[in-house]
Amino acid sequence: MTAPQDTATSIREMGVRARAAGRVLRSLPTARKAQALQAIAAELRARSGQILDANGQDVQAAQLSGLPAHMIARLRLDAAALETVAADVEAVSRLPDPVGETTPAQPQPSGIQVSQRRVPLGVLGVIYESRPNVTVDVAALALMSGNAVILRGGKETVHSNAALEAAIRVALEAEGLPGDAVQVIRDPAREHMRELLRLDDLVDAIIPRGGAGLHRYCVENATVPVIVGGIGVVHIYLDASFTHDPDDLRRAAEIIVNAKVQKPSACNALDTLLIDREALAALPDLARALLENGVELRADAEAWGALQDAGIVTTPAADSDYGTEFLALTASLKVVSGEEEALDFIAAHGNHTDVILTRNDAQAERFIQDVDSAAVIVNASPRFNDGGQLGLGAEVAISTQKLHARGPMGLRELTTTKWVVVGEGQIRG
Amino acid sequence: MTAPQDTATSIREMGVRARAAGRVLRSLPTARKAQALQAIAAELRARSGQILDANGQDVQAAQLSGLPAHMIARLRLDAAALETVAADVEAVSRLPDPVGETTPAQPQPSGIQVSQRRVPLGVLGVIYESRPNVTVDVAALALMSGNAVILRGGKETVHSNAALEAAIRVALEAEGLPGDAVQVIRDPAREHMRELLRLDDLVDAIIPRGGAGLHRYCVENATVPVIVGGIGVVHIYLDASFTHDPDDLRRAAEIIVNAKVQKPSACNALDTLLIDREALAALPDLARALLENGVELRADAEAWGALQDAGIVTTPAADSDYGTEFLALTASLKVVSGEEEALDFIAAHGNHTDVILTRNDAQAERFIQDVDSAAVIVNASPRFNDGGQLGLGAEVAISTQKLHARGPMGLRELTTTKWVVVGEGQIRG
Repeated sequence: MTAPQDTATSIREMGVRARAAGRVLRSLPTARKAQALQAIAAELRARSGQILDANGQDVQAAQLSGLPAHMIARLRLDAAALETVAADVEAVSRLPDPVGETTPAQPQPSGIQVSQRRVPLGVLGVIYESRPNVTVDVAALALMSGNAVILRGGKETVHSNAALEAAIRVALEAEGLPGDAVQVIRDPAREHMRELLRLDDLVDAIIPRGGAGLHRYCVENATVPVIVGGIGVVHIYLDASFTHDPDDLRRAAEIIVNAKVQKPSACNALDTLLIDREALAALPDLARALLENGVELRADAEAWGALQDAGIVTTPAADSDYGTEFLALTASLKVVSGEEEALDFIAAHGNHTDVILTRNDAQAERFIQDVDSAAVIVNASPRFNDGGQLGLGAEVAISTQKLHARGPMGLRELTTTKWVVVGEGQIRG
Repeated sequence: MTAPQDTATSIREMGVRARAAGRVLRSLPTARKAQALQAIAAELRARSGQILDANGQDVQAAQLSGLPAHMIARLRLDAAALETVAADVEAVSRLPDPVGETTPAQPQPSGIQVSQRRVPLGVLGVIYESRPNVTVDVAALALMSGNAVILRGGKETVHSNAALEAAIRVALEAEGLPGDAVQVIRDPAREHMRELLRLDDLVDAIIPRGGAGLHRYCVENATVPVIVGGIGVVHIYLDASFTHDPDDLRRAAEIIVNAKVQKPSACNALDTLLIDREALAALPDLARALLENGVELRADAEAWGALQDAGIVTTPAADSDYGTEFLALTASLKVVSGEEEALDFIAAHGNHTDVILTRNDAQAERFIQDVDSAAVIVNASPRFNDGGQLGLGAEVAISTQKLHARGPMGLRELTTTKWVVVGEGQIRG
């Protein structure tokens, strides 16, 4: 079985094949899907030599083309990394299957019985960066939720993705399932991506994973519905009530450092710390904890002055340091006059993950109610806004839009519902 | 209070005002929203003279411009129609409020407590035809679900919509609520609609209501997520098992006639009847019932022959008569070799509402499982795919896409969720 060629017409052909494969997948029992995933994991292990060779070609090409070291690190697979990929596929095979869940039938005045049944979306298009593990992760989540998927990875992973696609196809076909359920667009030319984005009669959703530029490109060019995610600003508001007890102050420092330092490149890492004016005495200790971890602080005039008084020199913040996703060891500081000002600030700049640190329950509830972000967190690190941490088992992306899915997207977010009506000959009066 | 002017910049200004209004609406208790709707209903009644005068201006202009009679009929309001509009607003005020529903908190291994809370989408953009009642219906549903809304009605309803918007604004402000929660774009120039479609930093969803051309325009031009709906083909598959008993045959005829005739202009009216070859003996009676109701039948060769043998002359069907939404007293007929061929045909042409008439439970379940449409109906009319009939109380539109909402959209479909995490100082390890 050869995969389709990547001419402009064949992107449509890939869509037609994906649609046909999706029709088979949508009626598979859970056990059959789980078994297919286990077969894929086994095939990845059996082909590890071929896959690592293909990956080696990609790494060598990337080195020759002068790709930065951190991007080559993302690209590189070794035996241990490939084993993790295979084990993750097996983990997905053990997740609960949302497909087939049906609401209790509700009789209506007409006598018809009405329910909603959960079904796969159908065909997904996923566009992502140069991480070959994503190819397999996304394929596993798509298959387990009964969807076919067309994948478009970064141009640096062409050989790796071809080897991974071949392994998945062979495993699916050996299980008697359509190999076209997982197809990779091999030609990295942007016009093929654009073709995929406009295949609205065949593809049900586009999920981009990558930087703001890719997301914008998808939103501007797609006629297929796009689930935008991963981009957003993270705030922590520290209320004075969380600084009175020394244990709380220590917890606040731990949370703030964890939020910024544990993985600065993550979308749920801290960007802006809003500090209650009445908690300003705590700022020097918090700032020292961040500085010791290599964080550059950009402070508004009031915070800058308070830190200078404590012998700490920081960078003055520009307007552009607020409402900005740093994705690096940088954070902005701003003094506010209490929760209300913090809420107004977050209403203007937030949408992803916002945290309040407070000992006042009414304040916490007001924050939860008023903040209009994908995740609102009380007294814990924003780094918990993650599919694994929230109990989804795995995630395909983090949505920051409001339609369909908001926050981490697991298997359930790759499904939709259909109305099921059972009658006994009723007509509408 | 004057409404904003319609310059290109002011569409953005309307978005900014809507966003601010939405922030107030999202935290209102149910009773407050219900009271606002009751105040709107009262204001509509109090201003009926002004509103009917404004509507008279629109009707007169439409007559002068030669608008077809059926479009003028949609446009026209009289005292009884306005009373129905007001009563419908009161009915929406009594619907259950989905906002604030919270899933039970799930403790995670980290110790955090995780739940999801239902919240309004925020700001809606609704684009619709020249029916002034829609202005009020949509405003009521948006407000009751805690959303602000920007409305763009047809150019023929400019005066009516201005009068209705003024009534809503006055009622909201008298209740201490932001009048900007419901704003109407008055200038019908298409560039203002396009501006609205691209306001993705301020508007959370676009809901078009109208013909295929409008939907396509929105999908092609919007950067705001669009919920597409209302367009689609409706099939009924008549299995032989539903024709053996004379009572069933009578029911089949009733359902098929109801599906086509009760409201031919509706999106859930029958387009194509697929008839099992073994049920062909029943076709002449069914065809007569449709013809007596003024339906034009376009038959494939086999059905055409069977009807001719019974002395019934019909039009031969062209390929373009399948997969086509007629929106008129026309239906196409096709003979199939059983359920499997019907399912293949529906997989190629269906997405909206598909019906099976059968006495075989396994067949019914297979149809429910395999058909990938917004509504799948067993032994009842497709006309039940309607918000009121399915128990939603009211509907803002019928979605035929799969993301977010599928089928009739009521209050719940105008909401989303946010993740709520409550911790005790947890950080991520």
